[in-house]
Amino acid sequence: MDELLERLAEIADLERMAMLLAWDQEVVMPPAGAEARGELRATVGRLSHERFIDERVGELLESAAPRDELEADVVRVARRDFDKARRVPGELVAEMARAGVAARGIWLQAREADDFAPFAPALQRNIELRRRYSACFPEAEHPYDPLVDDYEPGMRTAELREAFERLRDGLVPLVAAAPEVDDALLRTGPFPEAGQRALLTTVLRAIGVDDEQWRLDEAAHPFEATIGTSDVRLTTRYDEADLDSLYSSLHEFGHGLYEHQIDPALARTPLGAGASSAWHESQSRLWENMVGRSAGFWRWCFPHAQAALPECFGGATWQEVQRAANAVRPSLIRVSADEVTYGLHIVLRFELELALIEGDLAVADLPAAWNERTHAYLGLDVPDDAHGVLQDVHWAEGVFGYFPTYALGNVIAGQVWACVTADLPDLDERFAAGDFAPLREWLAEHVHRHGRKFSPQETLRRATGSTIDAKPYLAYLDSKYRAGITV
Amino acid sequence: MDELLERLAEIADLERMAMLLAWDQEVVMPPAGAEARGELRATVGRLSHERFIDERVGELLESAAPRDELEADVVRVARRDFDKARRVPGELVAEMARAGVAARGIWLQAREADDFAPFAPALQRNIELRRRYSACFPEAEHPYDPLVDDYEPGMRTAELREAFERLRDGLVPLVAAAPEVDDALLRTGPFPEAGQRALLTTVLRAIGVDDEQWRLDEAAHPFEATIGTSDVRLTTRYDEADLDSLYSSLHEFGHGLYEHQIDPALARTPLGAGASSAWHESQSRLWENMVGRSAGFWRWCFPHAQAALPECFGGATWQEVQRAANAVRPSLIRVSADEVTYGLHIVLRFELELALIEGDLAVADLPAAWNERTHAYLGLDVPDDAHGVLQDVHWAEGVFGYFPTYALGNVIAGQVWACVTADLPDLDERFAAGDFAPLREWLAEHVHRHGRKFSPQETLRRATGSTIDAKPYLAYLDSKYRAGITV
Repeated sequence: MDELLERLAEIADLERMAMLLAWDQEVVMPPAGAEARGELRATVGRLSHERFIDERVGELLESAAPRDELEADVVRVARRDFDKARRVPGELVAEMARAGVAARGIWLQAREADDFAPFAPALQRNIELRRRYSACFPEAEHPYDPLVDDYEPGMRTAELREAFERLRDGLVPLVAAAPEVDDALLRTGPFPEAGQRALLTTVLRAIGVDDEQWRLDEAAHPFEATIGTSDVRLTTRYDEADLDSLYSSLHEFGHGLYEHQIDPALARTPLGAGASSAWHESQSRLWENMVGRSAGFWRWCFPHAQAALPECFGGATWQEVQRAANAVRPSLIRVSADEVTYGLHIVLRFELELALIEGDLAVADLPAAWNERTHAYLGLDVPDDAHGVLQDVHWAEGVFGYFPTYALGNVIAGQVWACVTADLPDLDERFAAGDFAPLREWLAEHVHRHGRKFSPQETLRRATGSTIDAKPYLAYLDSKYRAGITV
Repeated sequence: MDELLERLAEIADLERMAMLLAWDQEVVMPPAGAEARGELRATVGRLSHERFIDERVGELLESAAPRDELEADVVRVARRDFDKARRVPGELVAEMARAGVAARGIWLQAREADDFAPFAPALQRNIELRRRYSACFPEAEHPYDPLVDDYEPGMRTAELREAFERLRDGLVPLVAAAPEVDDALLRTGPFPEAGQRALLTTVLRAIGVDDEQWRLDEAAHPFEATIGTSDVRLTTRYDEADLDSLYSSLHEFGHGLYEHQIDPALARTPLGAGASSAWHESQSRLWENMVGRSAGFWRWCFPHAQAALPECFGGATWQEVQRAANAVRPSLIRVSADEVTYGLHIVLRFELELALIEGDLAVADLPAAWNERTHAYLGLDVPDDAHGVLQDVHWAEGVFGYFPTYALGNVIAGQVWACVTADLPDLDERFAAGDFAPLREWLAEHVHRHGRKFSPQETLRRATGSTIDAKPYLAYLDSKYRAGITV
């Protein structure tokens, strides 16, 4: 048992290393370091994989005699990870990686030239390789199941289909009925960078960030990196034309807080991470949207925003800013979509990638299918593939089954939020007083501390008493948008 | 052969990882990350050691069939490293590490309390463990040889003793005869931090630093970290009372340039690093002292220093600044010693640690011996052990055999400098024109590109045609100091 724990600790450390290599590359590495960095990342990734799928780990798992509940949980989760990792031949893993790198290059050119055709064969190859990957799990109900399972262990296609149908059917009329909102207050600026930084410092300190355990840096594509539960690194970017730095920081804070509040006893075990991709996304979305666009948040934040950015907010009211922060406007690009339309971008991708994996949709027909659904769900015409089917990198890299986790994150956030607000009815008042501790503590107690101890479904059941269900999320949106913004 | 190269590349990558972990910890890590960082560093260190001393590496080295000269060099150097690493039982390595950590804690308290006595048993234990370490190499001429060999492969105690006797006998009269120099220009300030930063930017750019491949950050104890030959990271610290940030940057640049100019073909092999600790120190000292205190350097640098720090250098001349930069003044603390007295601090430590390992000096007698030699070599009385025998961390950590490399670095720098200036007689004029490329290129061609391809001694023979010899270094100092500063 001790040897097993030691080996698993080593693998957890290597995963932290991989995270540090990525953080360093995006935040501080001199540009010319990229080539050597590629080698370092490959070596750490390979070592971590090799050390995990080693025969010896199998023997140790076979003979492991857990001495307490924690050790029993570790063995159970490690055995599941091990069995899954051993099922896929190393050769297929390498082939998927190579094909992904090649397709990514072709995709970049295709997007640049706004021409889908040259990308089609590379995408076809990625799809075929994913089908081969799925075939390594012949017991799966559906060939898409093993793909989703990589990010959302235990989630089945049938469940997803049901949840997303409900989500789609709820969102389409909401988007159509959303009132026109003037959001110039948050879209015009200019918001001087120094003022944005001052505001972020105030907001992050209030919600739970301190210099002893956290960093905030700049990165072209904001992300969060956990190097240790007491070494949590957020990134953001500053654009003087908007205040997205605030919302991206709240988003990354949600990811960071999750990792930060995992029970320290789970450190250096396979349990010391978030329960799944969707769970992680639920926490980032919760802080970005449920908290950061709430009335209470803006009642508290507004004087700080005025002080930091007087030229932007001098003549406004907190109600106007909150209203602007909740504007709904259908648009073509997923990554800049608002809280309501975002889900439809994901539903569309889920439906299409499912059809591609099933073989019901030919790659050649993908652009037309994309454009048709964009019209049906968002009421928009796609002018070109760069603003349509070629906008995301995921399929180019061979990543299928990941898109759903974005929307599942919102759905879970809705379920969690319904429970939090039922348990803490004065939450909005607390936000208005700048007190975010009750929310942090609720999340720690009901979700964060468990890490990967329970399956995503079991984590959900324990936190909310429910299975995956889009209703609370739709109800949250509905109360906000159908009735007009709450303010 | 390919498997061997792959394994060695993995180990080289792990060593880079260890370097990045250290850099990150000193420069950017939130303080509370220290505990998890300790685990990460231990894991990477252990993996790198285990993967190297693995039986499989021995088999691969046995059966390796090099296909070219480079591969033959790799096998030769890797075999030497492997044989040495395998000779020491893992248990002894672990015991030395544990004893070093424990003794370091005791030393910190002893220094704080200015009381040598409680530290004595811990030091005694470190010495005994080093004797056991030496005993793993029964063929060694002298028990100190295997200790030095860890840092200066192939260097023998007998050679060191001879070189250091000559050094000591040359330095003592030089120090006694050094003229009084008023160095208030570089010691009074205040030197505003912004001005220091501006000056450093100009100087580093001129000597060869660009943002594509280098970084400069702050650290409490300046150091250099090579994450890749195109990812070189210098650190410095700013104190408004002096201009040490300039000299520490030149020093770290010397280390960085060495690694930066190693032949890229040696990357990810055991050859892709400096030839030895002394060789590394020779390069840092060369840039810090031979370049940074030269007349040519200050002729060029002075107008930039005036522009960046007008309040400090407005009324001065470059001759006055250069004179101040070359002041000699015996002092008690090694790390703040000037170029001339520094060597005597090292000779003293070398003689004492040699006597401790030989058993000719009892630990209890160490403080008295320290104070006696400080008086003999530097003409100073040691007021307390904190300013004497307790000032350095090395012996507390069990590091014996490293001190000599500091002085050897100066000696080698002197030998190299004699050759450089013979080959490039207009070097000082080039410096005066802000042109440091000829020096960089000479060093690349004669030293840097070879990395660890040749032994330190062979590297020296190729670069200078000589064995280790203190004469050129003493002649360099003599021409500067006995005759008064050159200006």
